[in-house]
Amino acid sequence: MTAPATAHGLLSGLDEIAEIGRDTRRGGYSRHLWQPADLELRDWFAARAVRLGLDVEIDRNGNTWAWWGPRGDDAIVVGSHLDSVPGGGAYDGPLGVVSTLDAIARLQASGFRPTRPCAVLVFAEEEGSRFGIACLGSRLMTGALDADQARALVDPEGISLAAAASAVGIDPAGLGEDPAALARIGLFVELHVEQGRGLIDLDSPVAVASSILAHGRWRITFTGEGNHAGATRMADRRDPMLAAARSMLGVRDAAVASSGSRATIGRIEAVPGGTNVISSQVAVWLDARAAEDAAARDLVTEIEARVAEAASAEGCTAVVAEESWSGAVAFDPALRDRLVRSLGGAPTLPTGAGHDAGVLSSRRPTAMIFVRNPTGVSHSPEEFATLDDCLAGVDALERVLRELL
Amino acid sequence: MTAPATAHGLLSGLDEIAEIGRDTRRGGYSRHLWQPADLELRDWFAARAVRLGLDVEIDRNGNTWAWWGPRGDDAIVVGSHLDSVPGGGAYDGPLGVVSTLDAIARLQASGFRPTRPCAVLVFAEEEGSRFGIACLGSRLMTGALDADQARALVDPEGISLAAAASAVGIDPAGLGEDPAALARIGLFVELHVEQGRGLIDLDSPVAVASSILAHGRWRITFTGEGNHAGATRMADRRDPMLAAARSMLGVRDAAVASSGSRATIGRIEAVPGGTNVISSQVAVWLDARAAEDAAARDLVTEIEARVAEAASAEGCTAVVAEESWSGAVAFDPALRDRLVRSLGGAPTLPTGAGHDAGVLSSRRPTAMIFVRNPTGVSHSPEEFATLDDCLAGVDALERVLRELL
Repeated sequence: MTAPATAHGLLSGLDEIAEIGRDTRRGGYSRHLWQPADLELRDWFAARAVRLGLDVEIDRNGNTWAWWGPRGDDAIVVGSHLDSVPGGGAYDGPLGVVSTLDAIARLQASGFRPTRPCAVLVFAEEEGSRFGIACLGSRLMTGALDADQARALVDPEGISLAAAASAVGIDPAGLGEDPAALARIGLFVELHVEQGRGLIDLDSPVAVASSILAHGRWRITFTGEGNHAGATRMADRRDPMLAAARSMLGVRDAAVASSGSRATIGRIEAVPGGTNVISSQVAVWLDARAAEDAAARDLVTEIEARVAEAASAEGCTAVVAEESWSGAVAFDPALRDRLVRSLGGAPTLPTGAGHDAGVLSSRRPTAMIFVRNPTGVSHSPEEFATLDDCLAGVDALERVLRELL
Repeated sequence: MTAPATAHGLLSGLDEIAEIGRDTRRGGYSRHLWQPADLELRDWFAARAVRLGLDVEIDRNGNTWAWWGPRGDDAIVVGSHLDSVPGGGAYDGPLGVVSTLDAIARLQASGFRPTRPCAVLVFAEEEGSRFGIACLGSRLMTGALDADQARALVDPEGISLAAAASAVGIDPAGLGEDPAALARIGLFVELHVEQGRGLIDLDSPVAVASSILAHGRWRITFTGEGNHAGATRMADRRDPMLAAARSMLGVRDAAVASSGSRATIGRIEAVPGGTNVISSQVAVWLDARAAEDAAARDLVTEIEARVAEAASAEGCTAVVAEESWSGAVAFDPALRDRLVRSLGGAPTLPTGAGHDAGVLSSRRPTAMIFVRNPTGVSHSPEEFATLDDCLAGVDALERVLRELL
């Protein structure tokens, strides 16, 4: 297969989904679990896979598999996700799926036939944008997330995960640890656009992942006294928005003080949310990460202290509730080294971003290939990768599959 | 009419609408212009008015009139509003409407007949909760809000005021200054639940308004760089949420430094609003008030300086845009004194809350009667007034109408 044809093949995958789930308000894409854009992407993936002669199935947790050849245990499984953050970019997730399909198409065109089972796997709700828990599909499959807890999760419209699953024909009783699916996975490889500036500094189009930061999400709810913005004297207020504002600065200061750590508030909800109303309650969501589990835990402990102090100073109360936790991941060293060798000595790189490959790594050997991000911007409409670098990613997957299969 | 019957009459009005527009998420009521709850309240009002033999009409700007006797210019007009802030209380607005209907019922029961035209007037969108401009109905009627600007206002779902008007059968071309409606109003009296603690301190169930603080709303938009919460080093960030947090503390500090002024951020929107995303943009809405126009303007100038400093410190930009402005109101002294005399020397009281009576005061003599709020809490599900104080409000309206008609 010639390079122009391959370029076209790769472009066509991203092009075909370029209009699905566009977010006209935020820019970029909002593609969330089992909502219309996600369902349309699933249909697109199934049709694409069928065109390659793959055999599509959906597992108990809503993850989609496409088998190249007969289904079987101990398979080489490659994939990523199709969902996005609100207003996300075109590459985070879909690049891995499109590149995997293209690598298989190349192998097929060259007459290559796998000698062991092989599947493309698209995980459900990697970003956690609808139900608040990132890597939902892989956490459910591995049992890292309790099934009862998962079924009770609610989206911003108050719809439970159980009800949302039923609505798309997935039996909520079947959600949870899936030993049969895990047995299918001999090893898992995920290609993903890099989400920082690591590959710019390394001057390389691709790298193999070494580790993922420890990472969790906490909901912090500040409660004060709702009142009239005009009739309430400044001295009489207990305004939870001000407790939140103090805390957000404290979150940043704590992260800066903890070398290499990261802490972010990107989501905030004021109740009732009127311009002429002092809020009664303000919720913010904390995303905190560090290289080691203990460092991440220490960071959150420090943040909890700052939050309590901020709330108290404003006459408010605060509750910090953990929504998810993922320990630091060191990817399987043997598989990592094998990929590095296949790729002619590609560099290795840690990442601050969570991935399904990280969740799966507790149960199966997993590896990741990163494609250079020329600006370091991700989770944003501005997220980008050059065509040359994307093609280098497809090359890498093709080489790795040829080696593993 | 006996006291128990009157108590029943008053309670029944609030009871009849007690289930309309309940907000199960925020608590209290969310009743916004031309949405289902507002339309249901309008139907309820019309039916109530017709039961009293009143003649109902809707003016060009969506305000509802109910005439007691023949329509005519230079009428005694009494009323308030039925819409609410998001998650508002049961009294702010409806108490004035229900009390006015009850006062008329009492006068009718006593055989009283007005000697000049008299109408109940329910203004549209007093709280500005759907289209962002408080006292929308009275601003349109008086021409204080330009009709073209009004038609282009959009609600949070992106629906324009023009489209929303059309959808309920109001011609958007007719929105704007309404000299015929203004000519109908000889004077306007509005009864309203007090929204602070003034009547507690005065130890009186009712008071007559003396003035309204100068008051405006500004939208402040902070723009930074959206990025991945895990992969972006703290030092590489330009996070508009932190610029907003600094600014919110600055807003409070500026208001505290300006004696008697009030400034509030009760509404905030982060874009894209994902937990694992550094925001690209954060908008907050400022509500600022002061006793004198110059003091309010000075306060906002000081806030603008603090906002610019906060944005710059975070590598972000900020834009401050005025959404509405209402100069301080001194109610018509002659009408105020007449009401004080009718009410046996009731106390007078300034208020920090804006009202349609304040907007109308630029064109017609207007007055307000406040009913004691035993906690000072308003714009909240906890907003309350005792039955005895509410009945004192109906008594006051009955006496005033007997005097004016």
